[in-house]
Amino acid sequence: MAKTKVHTRSHYEEERERGDAGEWACGRWFEYALVVALAALLLLAALVLALFWALYYRQGFAWSDAPQRQFNLHPVLMVAGFVTFSGFSALLFRVCRCCRRLHVKLFHMVLHALAIPCVVVGFWAALDWHELQQPPLPHFHSLHSWLGLVTMGLFALQFVVGFFSFLVLLCCEGATAAFRAALVPVHAAFGITTFMLAIATCLTGLSHKAYELYGAFYPTSWSEEGIIINALAMVLVALGILVSYTVRREGSRGEGKTFLSERL
Amino acid sequence: MAKTKVHTRSHYEEERERGDAGEWACGRWFEYALVVALAALLLLAALVLALFWALYYRQGFAWSDAPQRQFNLHPVLMVAGFVTFSGFSALLFRVCRCCRRLHVKLFHMVLHALAIPCVVVGFWAALDWHELQQPPLPHFHSLHSWLGLVTMGLFALQFVVGFFSFLVLLCCEGATAAFRAALVPVHAAFGITTFMLAIATCLTGLSHKAYELYGAFYPTSWSEEGIIINALAMVLVALGILVSYTVRREGSRGEGKTFLSERL
Ligand code: HEM
Ligand code: HEM
Repeated sequence: MAKTKVHTRSHYEEERERGDAGEWACGRWFEYALVVALAALLLLAALVLALFWALYYRQGFAWSDAPQRQFNLHPVLMVAGFVTFSGFSALLFRVCRCCRRLHVKLFHMVLHALAIPCVVVGFWAALDWHELQQPPLPHFHSLHSWLGLVTMGLFALQFVVGFFSFLVLLCCEGATAAFRAALVPVHAAFGITTFMLAIATCLTGLSHKAYELYGAFYPTSWSEEGIIINALAMVLVALGILVSYTVRREGSRGEGKTFLSERL
Repeated sequence: MAKTKVHTRSHYEEERERGDAGEWACGRWFEYALVVALAALLLLAALVLALFWALYYRQGFAWSDAPQRQFNLHPVLMVAGFVTFSGFSALLFRVCRCCRRLHVKLFHMVLHALAIPCVVVGFWAALDWHELQQPPLPHFHSLHSWLGLVTMGLFALQFVVGFFSFLVLLCCEGATAAFRAALVPVHAAFGITTFMLAIATCLTGLSHKAYELYGAFYPTSWSEEGIIINALAMVLVALGILVSYTVRREGSRGEGKTFLSERL
C-alpha cells in the first residue's frame, strides 16, 4: 500500500508538503512559464523550418529511386527525433507538475520511443544517399558523421539504461529504489548532454549541406534558402542557449533537486 | 577592516567554516581531480591540434600578402581565445581553492583579456580572407559566421559586464555587494553558455573548411588531414560533454552554491 502511494502522488503535492511550492514567488513562476513556453515554441519552430526547407526548396521526400530527395528525410527526421520529440519529452517533467509520476515517466519513455523510428529511418536515408552517389561515397568520413555516431550512441545508451532501470526494475520496486534514485541525476545529466550534442550535430550537418548546395558560391549572394537554413540554425542555437542557461541557473539556486527531472 | 577580511579569505577556508570541505568524501575528490585534469588536458590538446593542423598541413601563417595562409590564423586564434584561454580562465575558480579570491578574480580577468587580441586578430583574418578572394566574398552569409557573431557578442557582453561589476564596483564595495552577489550566478550561467556556443561555432567552422578543402571528394578517401580535423572536432566535443555533464551533476548535488564559480 505504502509502495503504490509513492506513485500516486504528483511532484506538485510533494513540493507542497516540503513547502517548496509556497516559496515560488511571482517572479519565479513567470520565469518558469517563460522558459517552458519559449522552449515549446522553439522545438516546434525547428521542426516546421526543417519541413519547410525540405518541402519548399528541396522538392520533398522520396526513397531510394530518387537519392537527392531521399536525403531530405535525413535532416527532417533527425530534427524531429533528436530535437522536437526528445525536447518535448524532457519538457514533460516540467510541465506535468500535477500528474502522477508513473504516468509522466511512461509518457517520457513513449515520446523517446517515438524518436527511435525517426532516427533509424533518418540514419538509413543518409547511409543510402552515400551508397547511391556516383561513385558511392564511403561512410563515416566527415566530422558531421563522427558527431552523429557519438550522439546516436549516447542516445541508445540512455534509452536502454533508462528503460531497464526506471521501468523494468519497477517490478521489484523496494529493492531497487536506492539504485534508481542514484541513477536519476546521472540520467538527467547525460540526457541534457545528448540533447546539446544533437544540436551541435545538426549544426555541422546544416553547414555541410549548405556548402554542398552552394559550393564556392554559397556566400556570394543572399539566397532565400540560405536564410532559411541559417534561421533553422539560429533556432537550434537558441534552444541550446535556453537549455544551458536554465540548467545552470537552477543548479545555482539548488533547484536541481526540487525540479522534476531530478526525481525518481 | 571587516571589509578587507572578506577578500583575504580563500574559498577553501570558507568552505571549511561551513563544514563543506569535511564532507568531501574520497570519491568526490577523485571525481574533482579527474574532471580538472581531463579538462586541462583537452584544452591544451585543442590548441596543439589546431596549431599542428595549420603548421603541418596548411603551410603556417602569413598576413594579407598570402590570404590562404592568413586564413590559418583564424581557426588557431579562435581556438586559443575562445577555448583554451577562456577554458583555463573558468577552470581557475576550481583549481585555486586556497588562493585569495581577489587574486583569482584578477587572474580570471587577465586570462580573458588575453583572449581579446586573439579574437580580434582571428576575426580580422577571416574578414580579410573574404575581401581578398577573387571576386571578394560578401560577409556574414554562412551559418558559421552567424554563429560566430552571436558568440563574439555574448563574449563582449560578458567581459564588459564582468569587468565593471566585479572589478570597478569593488571601489564602493559595501554598497554594491548585494548587486554583485546577484550577478554572479547569471555571469557563470552566461559564461558556460558562451563556451558551449564557441565550441559549436568551431565545429561548424571546421566542417565548413573541411568541405572547402576536399569538396565533393572530401568523404571519398581517408586523408591524414581529415583525421586531424575530425580529431580536433572530437576534442572539442569531449570538452562540451565534460562541461555539460559536470555543471549538471553539480546542480543536482546542490554544489552550485559551494563551487567556486558561484561566489562573489
Ligand atoms: C542529431 C541529428 C543528426 C545525426 C545523429 C546525424 C548523423 C549522420 C551520420 C551518422 C551521417 C553519416 C552517414 C554515412 O557516413 O554513411 C550523416 C550524414 C549527413 N548528414 Fe546528418 N545527422 C543529423 C542531422 C543532420 C542535419 C540536421 C543535417 C542538415 C542538412 C544533416 C546533414 C547531413 C549530410 C549533408 C550528410 C552527408 C554527408 C556526410 O556524410 O557528412 N544531418 N548524418
Ligand atoms: C569561436 C570561434 C570562432 C568564431 C567566433 C568565428 C567567427 C567567424 C566569423 C564571424 C566569420 C565570418 C567572416 C566574414 O563573413 O567576413 C568566420 C569565417 C570563417 N571561419 Fe570562423 N570562427 C570561429 C572558429 C573557426 C574555426 C575553429 C574554424 C576552422 C577552420 C573556422 C573557419 C572559418 C571559415 C572557413 C570561414 C570563412 C567562410 C565563412 O564565412 O563561413 N572558424 N568565422
